[in-house]
Amino acid sequence: MILTLNAGSSSLKFSVFDLSAGEEEIANGIVERIGSAEGRATLEIGGERQQVDFQGDHSVAVQAIGLFLRKQKLLAKVKAVGHRVVHGGETFQQPTRITTEVEQTIERLSPLAPLHNPVNLQGIQLAKATLPNVPHVAVFDTAFHSTMLAQAFRYPVPNAWYTKHGVRKYGFHGTSHAYVSTIAKDVLTKVEKKSSKIITLHLGNGCSAAAVIDGKCIDTTMGLTPLEGLMMGTRSGDVDPGLAAYMSSLGMSIDAYDKALNKESGLLGIAAENDMRTLLSMREEGSDLARLAIAMFVYRLRKAVGSFAAAMGGIDALVFTAGIGENASDIRAEVCEDLTFLGIELVAELNAIRSDTPRIISKGTCSVLVVPTNEELQIARATAGVIK
Amino acid sequence: MILTLNAGSSSLKFSVFDLSAGEEEIANGIVERIGSAEGRATLEIGGERQQVDFQGDHSVAVQAIGLFLRKQKLLAKVKAVGHRVVHGGETFQQPTRITTEVEQTIERLSPLAPLHNPVNLQGIQLAKATLPNVPHVAVFDTAFHSTMLAQAFRYPVPNAWYTKHGVRKYGFHGTSHAYVSTIAKDVLTKVEKKSSKIITLHLGNGCSAAAVIDGKCIDTTMGLTPLEGLMMGTRSGDVDPGLAAYMSSLGMSIDAYDKALNKESGLLGIAAENDMRTLLSMREEGSDLARLAIAMFVYRLRKAVGSFAAAMGGIDALVFTAGIGENASDIRAEVCEDLTFLGIELVAELNAIRSDTPRIISKGTCSVLVVPTNEELQIARATAGVIK
Repeated sequence: MILTLNAGSSSLKFSVFDLSAGEEEIANGIVERIGSAEGRATLEIGGERQQVDFQGDHSVAVQAIGLFLRKQKLLAKVKAVGHRVVHGGETFQQPTRITTEVEQTIERLSPLAPLHNPVNLQGIQLAKATLPNVPHVAVFDTAFHSTMLAQAFRYPVPNAWYTKHGVRKYGFHGTSHAYVSTIAKDVLTKVEKKSSKIITLHLGNGCSAAAVIDGKCIDTTMGLTPLEGLMMGTRSGDVDPGLAAYMSSLGMSIDAYDKALNKESGLLGIAAENDMRTLLSMREEGSDLARLAIAMFVYRLRKAVGSFAAAMGGIDALVFTAGIGENASDIRAEVCEDLTFLGIELVAELNAIRSDTPRIISKGTCSVLVVPTNEELQIARATAGVIK
Repeated sequence: MILTLNAGSSSLKFSVFDLSAGEEEIANGIVERIGSAEGRATLEIGGERQQVDFQGDHSVAVQAIGLFLRKQKLLAKVKAVGHRVVHGGETFQQPTRITTEVEQTIERLSPLAPLHNPVNLQGIQLAKATLPNVPHVAVFDTAFHSTMLAQAFRYPVPNAWYTKHGVRKYGFHGTSHAYVSTIAKDVLTKVEKKSSKIITLHLGNGCSAAAVIDGKCIDTTMGLTPLEGLMMGTRSGDVDPGLAAYMSSLGMSIDAYDKALNKESGLLGIAAENDMRTLLSMREEGSDLARLAIAMFVYRLRKAVGSFAAAMGGIDALVFTAGIGENASDIRAEVCEDLTFLGIELVAELNAIRSDTPRIISKGTCSVLVVPTNEELQIARATAGVIK
């Protein structure tokens, strides 16, 4: 069995997979609001879920998960642990077995992901203490994008910023883009449809798109940081690079600017609400701000689809995934509207179906798919691949 | 006759048009390096050009132009003066006859274009002193883009930045985009080809694209400032909005950051050279940096074309203009390569022709055109339209 761990700043997610038995997820759970007085642990096994109050730090959280797995007689069966690590820089282009040197490099890359890499590393060190005798593997969010060419990953800024400070596009959500593009390829192969040029749209609270040719990522919308690209829940995505100096001329510090773009922008900045379900209801009820926020979200998505189609010289499939992508059929319909010049023709009846299985919802030459993402399974698969 | 004036920080351009006689340009000239010891004035009339040393400020430059026009017996024939003004904000959506109130508004908009509006205004005031008895008209770089919808011109940033500080996409090069899109429409109408959805690419030292439906601009790549969008000679165009905070964390001030993106980036930042002709030669001679710079320039252009195609639901014509667009046939060929899914098929023999007349260089359903731009004539036309 493979244990996967995803350590965030105030949460710790885990899953246990039996990859020999049809990739069955045996158990999973999450410890939330770590470090706060309202901490909570949710643990699920065999369809049964329990919730308990939780008090403590990341170390206590890892011990609690260890205890749960021991009680369920799973801990001894864990053959390897797969860790989500956000930033692999240019060093890690594949899932990698964790050594002391790998840990040092993850730490060295922290300036590129100050909110993620340090806590990812902490998760690794705590899990190694609990499971010292099995291999630990780092699965990087950036790795899937490492196949981009320089014309896509370089920014038109002074060369030294790249050579000295690593300023380039890395991309994120790679585990999700890898997972859904692989599934989409399988689905399309079964119905004998072309799948060489795929655009994947990961639309959750964070949003990114990837352009994938024959399984290899050639471009993605997120960049040096997860702020670039599409409009998101609270993140702006692309803005005029001159806006920083303009807001500074009005007296705003660069820290306040960056915080505003990360936390107070996107859907929230326009409509004071970042949940897409709520926004769709608000629009229904006549809210002009909700209408504008959704129109901007969709318009920027459509432009990203067009730009990646041009980057690939056409498009065989468009894949929606993550919270909004899997559930918001209205958003899917609006993104695809009037894109018949790309061969995109949504079938309303298929788009309306609610399901948790991968499916085609179009009839044009470019297939449109909904593919539920599963980053934990992808991490487990990658981990198994490394230790094999 | 119409006199046009384009006042920059260290230059002053003028032209005199006789719009009644086939839009003939009677005279033109430029005073360069105003305020420096190496100032120079170039004056041309009837095919004869003279160059003289020039010493003085903008006031002396306007007087010198006045003197030249008087000597040529043109000054008394000037019926109106058209002034290029960079930023019209949300106030000026059309060429506008200049009143005291208009001057005040141009001044009020200066924070949005601190390098341009103050000097544009100075040009207006000096020209009014020289020609006090004719109407003066302001022709705004932003006006052509004022037809954009909110979904295109708003940024996903806190609402108050727009309502209080005017943070939105305005767009620039509007006079050029208006001119070449009109010419392209005429050319296409004559050969009975569709022209409703046009993308214009203004590729000079500054670069921008516009999406134009039935003569109305619906989107453009430049934004709040002329820094956004395409890769340019020394300007970066789009970068990760998180780059500002990252460079700040390395100790760079926001002013230095903005200066680097405006003056030390783009083609220059990558290949230490910003002249496209030189870069093409360097690439020919095997320079890897020139190859990378051009590849990035072309790749980002292709993505812009694709994104605007998606924004318009297809594309009937693609128009190249300005220094690079009119002259660099290699760049045109590379932008259009592998875009047959958009109906773009360049004809190499037509693309190779050097000419200063508008022409079609493709055979696909989407027509590709080269149209030499003429901002001065467009300003003269707009001025005549206002005083009629």
